[in-house]
Amino acid sequence: VAAVARAASAFFAEAPNKPFALVVGYTDPHRAAKGFANERTYPGIKPVRFGPDEVTLPSFLPDRPEVRADLADYYQSISRLDQGIGLMLEALDRSGHAGDTLVIFLSDNGMPFPGAKTTLYDPGLNLPLMIRSPAQKKPGMVNRALVSWVDVLPTILDWTGVKGSRNLAGRSLLPILEEENPKGWDEVFASHVCHEVTMYYPMRMIRTRTHKYIRNLAHQLDYPCAQDLYDSPTWQGILKRGDRMMGNRTLEQYVHRPAEELYDLEKDPGELHNLAGEASTSTTLADLRKRLKGWQEKTNDPWLVKYRHE
Amino acid sequence: VAAVARAASAFFAEAPNKPFALVVGYTDPHRAAKGFANERTYPGIKPVRFGPDEVTLPSFLPDRPEVRADLADYYQSISRLDQGIGLMLEALDRSGHAGDTLVIFLSDNGMPFPGAKTTLYDPGLNLPLMIRSPAQKKPGMVNRALVSWVDVLPTILDWTGVKGSRNLAGRSLLPILEEENPKGWDEVFASHVCHEVTMYYPMRMIRTRTHKYIRNLAHQLDYPCAQDLYDSPTWQGILKRGDRMMGNRTLEQYVHRPAEELYDLEKDPGELHNLAGEASTSTTLADLRKRLKGWQEKTNDPWLVKYRHE
Repeated sequence: VAAVARAASAFFAEAPNKPFALVVGYTDPHRAAKGFANERTYPGIKPVRFGPDEVTLPSFLPDRPEVRADLADYYQSISRLDQGIGLMLEALDRSGHAGDTLVIFLSDNGMPFPGAKTTLYDPGLNLPLMIRSPAQKKPGMVNRALVSWVDVLPTILDWTGVKGSRNLAGRSLLPILEEENPKGWDEVFASHVCHEVTMYYPMRMIRTRTHKYIRNLAHQLDYPCAQDLYDSPTWQGILKRGDRMMGNRTLEQYVHRPAEELYDLEKDPGELHNLAGEASTSTTLADLRKRLKGWQEKTNDPWLVKYRHE
Repeated sequence: VAAVARAASAFFAEAPNKPFALVVGYTDPHRAAKGFANERTYPGIKPVRFGPDEVTLPSFLPDRPEVRADLADYYQSISRLDQGIGLMLEALDRSGHAGDTLVIFLSDNGMPFPGAKTTLYDPGLNLPLMIRSPAQKKPGMVNRALVSWVDVLPTILDWTGVKGSRNLAGRSLLPILEEENPKGWDEVFASHVCHEVTMYYPMRMIRTRTHKYIRNLAHQLDYPCAQDLYDSPTWQGILKRGDRMMGNRTLEQYVHRPAEELYDLEKDPGELHNLAGEASTSTTLADLRKRLKGWQEKTNDPWLVKYRHE
């Protein structure tokens, strides 16, 4: 972790007066071969340990000792990442470029626990995003725009001064950086094909302020379990006991999914009660189906061909 | 087609006394945007047309006028390929290297008709292979070895004199080129993940002299239809009439497959009667399962992980 900051310092020192783009991917808080690699020592990093009672248990996980221990390990890994980001920002300060550099911090998937990572449920989609711009006047403010990682590239292009439409799916975030409730940012789309090459489970999704609609294109298959999640104490505990529930969700519901899922996120933030097929939601369903299909058409989704057989 | 031979001549002229490897892939007899592109003219090639009554109807296709017309078009495309290969061999003769060049002719998939291409049934697996070696003493002989395209690379390495094991799945064919019934060539394996990226349907297979065993790893899904096959007059005719049969096979059987298929190829060359699960074949099934799994382990098949959930 500290070595990454040192490498970044060396990078800044070599190209002091040229525009640069530095992409840093930490392994924390990814799962390691064993747990979260907390048993290793990390020079320059203070280990921050958590007790099983200190963790916040998400509603999609069972309250079991091994789950709490797994979460505590995860927290420790995040604290290491947190310190690493701090070292990176210090290195940027020392380089003299903090005043002309846009910093974007994000995660590429949800927490590495069943019910989150690889899913299009909110714990798999609602990821950290922090942007620090030197032009910013309200540091620390929270922006309620629904944004997506397809907006990252247009944001960077905008920051570097590249002009003109490039037929990109996303939009630059720079114009709304300092707005708490920007208008016209009320829907996001998501797409998943497979987490590992053997784990085919194509899904398409639209999420609005109030609803989520998921289209499971290969719903006949069991929902696959990423290998790191499969090996986790959390999942192994569920298997060993033969649990029927995983937090508030049944295991059956998690593994066998219908072709379409529709959730009312205001009444049902845990995404437990599928409303697709209920007469009362037919207008919402039709609207979200149409918007999702429109996005697939706009982005030339190859999986649209699937519909030919339906 | 003729242009390919001219390009090959130019290639031979440029490197007259160096070892060379020339890989030529013809578009014939692939399906084109419309039919088999027989309406185009091909300089240097004589069109050979076939009547609908001249074609041999395979048992897996329905005897319908549009199927016979489609097959006749396919034959014409093959006759063009045939002439193209002739021109290539003439170019090789003119180069003076016919006497020190190994010529391998093969097809990369079965005929572009439903029931053949993309399947692991014999019409999708039993592909043309002709090898001409200058050392050959019995030209035109038929070799009954069961071989696979994994044997092509070791054959070429052997021909070029490269020595030593490379941990390859196949074996050189050179030592058995002139044997009609070489010993120890009585099984082949096959693997399929997807024909197009949207067409996930992983299968694994072993074929012996007498039996075939197929493992359909995502059998819950409908068997996908390659786009060129979907658009073919043959498939469109089946859809338009709402046929229940496709030749000797039911459409239901073709589209919805079980997890395991076992066929007695001597009694049932059309692979219509699945014997997996029949008590009388349990020994054969267990044996083929074991051999197929052994091959997956030998080749580090990533899909072996699937078995963890079974």
